[in-house]
Amino acid sequence: MTIKEIADVLKAHDNYEILTHNYPDGDCLGSGFALCIALQQLGKNARVITTELPQRFGYLTREVREQDFDAQFIISVDVADEKLLGINRSAYEGRIDLCIDHHGSNCVNAPARYVEAEAAAAGEIIFALAKELGVNITKGIADCLYTAVSTDTGCFRYVNTTPRTLRIAADLIELGCDSAYINKVNFETKSKRRVQLEREILENMIFCADDKCAIIYTTLEMVEGLSDDETEGIASIPREIEGVKMGITVREKPNGEYKVSARTNGDVDACEFCKGFGGGGHIGAAGCTLHGTLEGSIERLIKAAEEML
Amino acid sequence: MTIKEIADVLKAHDNYEILTHNYPDGDCLGSGFALCIALQQLGKNARVITTELPQRFGYLTREVREQDFDAQFIISVDVADEKLLGINRSAYEGRIDLCIDHHGSNCVNAPARYVEAEAAAAGEIIFALAKELGVNITKGIADCLYTAVSTDTGCFRYVNTTPRTLRIAADLIELGCDSAYINKVNFETKSKRRVQLEREILENMIFCADDKCAIIYTTLEMVEGLSDDETEGIASIPREIEGVKMGITVREKPNGEYKVSARTNGDVDACEFCKGFGGGGHIGAAGCTLHGTLEGSIERLIKAAEEML
Repeated sequence: MTIKEIADVLKAHDNYEILTHNYPDGDCLGSGFALCIALQQLGKNARVITTELPQRFGYLTREVREQDFDAQFIISVDVADEKLLGINRSAYEGRIDLCIDHHGSNCVNAPARYVEAEAAAAGEIIFALAKELGVNITKGIADCLYTAVSTDTGCFRYVNTTPRTLRIAADLIELGCDSAYINKVNFETKSKRRVQLEREILENMIFCADDKCAIIYTTLEMVEGLSDDETEGIASIPREIEGVKMGITVREKPNGEYKVSARTNGDVDACEFCKGFGGGGHIGAAGCTLHGTLEGSIERLIKAAEEML
Repeated sequence: MTIKEIADVLKAHDNYEILTHNYPDGDCLGSGFALCIALQQLGKNARVITTELPQRFGYLTREVREQDFDAQFIISVDVADEKLLGINRSAYEGRIDLCIDHHGSNCVNAPARYVEAEAAAAGEIIFALAKELGVNITKGIADCLYTAVSTDTGCFRYVNTTPRTLRIAADLIELGCDSAYINKVNFETKSKRRVQLEREILENMIFCADDKCAIIYTTLEMVEGLSDDETEGIASIPREIEGVKMGITVREKPNGEYKVSARTNGDVDACEFCKGFGGGGHIGAAGCTLHGTLEGSIERLIKAAEEML
């Protein structure tokens, strides 16, 4: 379906519920609330259904009005798979009327679908849709969509960033979004506990294979009381060190397993490395699961890394 | 003068030397080499004069041809003050024919000047100039200009980023610049020594005034052998912690002094704080110099912070 056809579907219906994925991020929340505000502006009833709203994203709901209605049309945004609906899965699985997403792997079963894998963020699609719907892109909508496109691209730093992404961000700043505040909240604020965790990780970092491999780990004790939000992105720490070809992150899980993720810059095959431990993935990012002790797991990883690099 | 008038000046002359500032960054180097390639493309002789070329910026010179000529026209790019020419100051002070800059405080004395304080980077001005000159913006020029605009905006994260900045970056990606490589080199690569320094800084971080103030310090021993490049940006570490109103960085200097920089988010007056120690600056960023021991200096800072916050 085209953006115009999706817009026509949205004009023709009413009483919308907009679903986001579990562990919601800036893209699904920003896209979801932007669509909600846009639909309300068109005189429709709409609400966003999410598993949680992290405190720092509170500003996204400023222009959202609470409305009392029975849902008649279900939209999923940025949800690649119905399994990712989390606690909302049982209530909504198989009931989605329209799926809007930017994951090429999307497998949501819905009569109306708009999946554009070239979009860096679902927010790019919602921006095009809002324009097609003739919606006035208010400051509130602009804040939501800037949040969506900036967070899914690491503030325009990741390789998924395209000229279109940058031009949409330019338009949103002109439309009045508070990019300074949004960037500060999402890219320049760390909790004290997160800083402590980073310190502990750096203290315990292990270099091997002539410094071509760096290994970090987190134990249950180290991440106790930290939200998923606060532990996000730690896997990028070892990979960013100059000369490191493969960065490995080992996470102790409550069931006693160790989840391993390997990241490379593509010149070393992370997938091949993880296959040696029964795992898999892509050339640049792969994972596996180890059992036993932390020390023993790390020893096995060091040995395999030294053989491979 | 207008961009068109500057372009006319450049068309009318030949044998250019392009000056950059000391401790050269991505903006002055990217802008300088882009202008150099553009002038060479117009059939002119041109070279860039810099105090050093950090290794990670080596890619900027790929399309630059070495030319043998006697300089006849001197251009400064991104140089706010002739004092900042470093080791090249004695040879070039008072000889600059054209000054191109984006610092509102620019005080370079030159017969032709183009200073645009609204530009996030000098690279924005060079982009406009290259278009005015009718230059073919090759991959090499695009790589230089993308480096300029991305590094001076923290990859489009800082408040100086404007819609124009983002649109220029979009154009440069379409023109073939390798934004993935440039972002990786400039925003995702830390030396092992830098990582060790961050670890030591975090280990020794001091919180005071009910965690509203965080103090970090570096001793000469901690930064021994590190380049300026590798110690850049550490002052942002304490300020980024959630709840911290004022982040203070104390740097031991070879002369035995302690250079203090205070950063706030504007709700606390960093200038007032530093004035108490004979320093000054702006409401959000200020500095002062302390003497005596490190411990004594930090004690005085803690006391003043607790009184103020």
